[in-house]
Amino acid sequence: MDPSELNIPPMKDLTIDNITENTILINSQSPDQRLTYVMERLVTHLHDFARETRLSTSEWMAALNFLVKVGQISSDVRHEFILLSDILGLSLLVDAIDHPKPASSTEGSVLGPFHTHDPPSISNGSSISSDPAGEPCLVVCTVSDQAGIPIVGVKIDIWETDSSGHYDVQYADLQSPDGRCVMKSDENGVFYFKAIVPVPYPIPHDGPVGQLLKLLKRHPWRPAHMHFMFEKEGWDNLITALYIRNDPYETSDAVFGVKQSLVVDFTTVDAATAKEYGVKEGTKLLKHDFVLVGKEETMKLRDENALKAMEKLGRRVKLIDHLPVPDLD
Amino acid sequence: MDPSELNIPPMKDLTIDNITENTILINSQSPDQRLTYVMERLVTHLHDFARETRLSTSEWMAALNFLVKVGQISSDVRHEFILLSDILGLSLLVDAIDHPKPASSTEGSVLGPFHTHDPPSISNGSSISSDPAGEPCLVVCTVSDQAGIPIVGVKIDIWETDSSGHYDVQYADLQSPDGRCVMKSDENGVFYFKAIVPVPYPIPHDGPVGQLLKLLKRHPWRPAHMHFMFEKEGWDNLITALYIRNDPYETSDAVFGVKQSLVVDFTTVDAATAKEYGVKEGTKLLKHDFVLVGKEETMKLRDENALKAMEKLGRRVKLIDHLPVPDLD
Repeated sequence: MDPSELNIPPMKDLTIDNITENTILINSQSPDQRLTYVMERLVTHLHDFARETRLSTSEWMAALNFLVKVGQISSDVRHEFILLSDILGLSLLVDAIDHPKPASSTEGSVLGPFHTHDPPSISNGSSISSDPAGEPCLVVCTVSDQAGIPIVGVKIDIWETDSSGHYDVQYADLQSPDGRCVMKSDENGVFYFKAIVPVPYPIPHDGPVGQLLKLLKRHPWRPAHMHFMFEKEGWDNLITALYIRNDPYETSDAVFGVKQSLVVDFTTVDAATAKEYGVKEGTKLLKHDFVLVGKEETMKLRDENALKAMEKLGRRVKLIDHLPVPDLD
Repeated sequence: MDPSELNIPPMKDLTIDNITENTILINSQSPDQRLTYVMERLVTHLHDFARETRLSTSEWMAALNFLVKVGQISSDVRHEFILLSDILGLSLLVDAIDHPKPASSTEGSVLGPFHTHDPPSISNGSSISSDPAGEPCLVVCTVSDQAGIPIVGVKIDIWETDSSGHYDVQYADLQSPDGRCVMKSDENGVFYFKAIVPVPYPIPHDGPVGQLLKLLKRHPWRPAHMHFMFEKEGWDNLITALYIRNDPYETSDAVFGVKQSLVVDFTTVDAATAKEYGVKEGTKLLKHDFVLVGKEETMKLRDENALKAMEKLGRRVKLIDHLPVPDLD
């Protein structure tokens, strides 16, 4: 580890005015052009933030201590940094950048911190909720391509809170998953299940993110919704949610997830439907048709958007693995 | 918690192009103008970073998981977020902003993650190190104002590694503090103590920050140094360090702390000095005169610098508690 091999100028007497270029320089030794570019933008924005606010030592220390707390309250079932990203609008932004949606397809929404990787697999017609206090509902959906052709065998993750607004993993004494499942679309692109009508709920606000919201005089509520995630080889992953119309928090979601096209109405099950799906007449009914976009089409759209956006920003870039790096040629 | 009280426009269908202004708006409900301004700049830079890199979902998730790890390895005796701030040049920058130094005073350097709050108090002449493998040295210092008038009763924190390059708190089986102390300058502004000659050492690189350095092909080494922190009512806190000349890492410090004025030479103790301080002739000797700046002078300088810098950035601000906020009048 001989520093003379570093081929960088002597780093001494660094100041407010030259620390940024020097940090960028020492961070530019990897052959990974994408890493170098991401670090360059990160360091530039981090330093500009400090310079534009004249950040004080005590504010800096308070921020670092806050970040330690965000990490330390995180666990296998609670990702407080995702929550922080959510309330700062970053999650929505990254999803919008990474998963552009043509007008004819289903829009995305925020993943949130409560998706888990081992929900029970169920088949059509099963129930995902065991909460006796929840209002039962039937959910009948299709998944198709933009031309309306059903897509068979799509893996679908579904998750929602119980009637008190808590996800299963928020209970310390949880025995088995509840309010969540993974299922597959059938030969007609159909999937249906029993659940409970979603309720609005506050995001976990007993931790550092909750303290920040309080400081900012922001409420922690999300409007009632049900999460869906779609995965199938050849199709762009779709992370989305359906929001129930006229929720009091429909226009002030703490994590900015609501889109008009994802706001839905419940109706009630008629006699024929009750018989077909084995539920009581009058049960709440949610029907929705999801539309996926091919992986290649999405990548092409993302590449086009990236190049257009970077040109608008005056940045000359090329794409490596569909991600921009400076074009130095 | 009635969202209609929020007095903000409906937040729905947020996009790459309008998420930033909307997040800033919902973050602007506190009467704390400084908080509002800091959050505005934070959200702007965070979002611009994502837009300028076209940050992908997998990069975003990798970053959030990295930050969780940084928080989780942190403890009472290891602040991995300070370490992260150090290697990104942010610590140096914040210190330079917050503690401007007139030319005639001692420059600051990075605090680092290993300062503790309960070192043993010692009096002049005591030893701070019990490491038999270290090369003994005598350190004789003064602390004065810019006119050379001694400052009496300054609280001085001193800390250094052992001869293997580890701080006491890095040992799991640590019985009592070692290589650190707190002392007071005497009636002549003098303080002196026995220690060991500092050695270069790698910053802790067994955690996420070490992994990042490796990814960036950066070495984790700091040149040999001894930390000093000075505190006395009426004087600006001075956090600094003395660096030993000709260290192999003098010009590539992993945390950007070296300043030419803080690079010092060891000499050796002559017969008279040996007798005066009760050490062997030929012992390594470090002498240094530290110069503090009055609190008021520092605040005045900081205010002037802030206003000048903000004007240069084209930002119209006023200072509240010596920190800038937008001047909307």
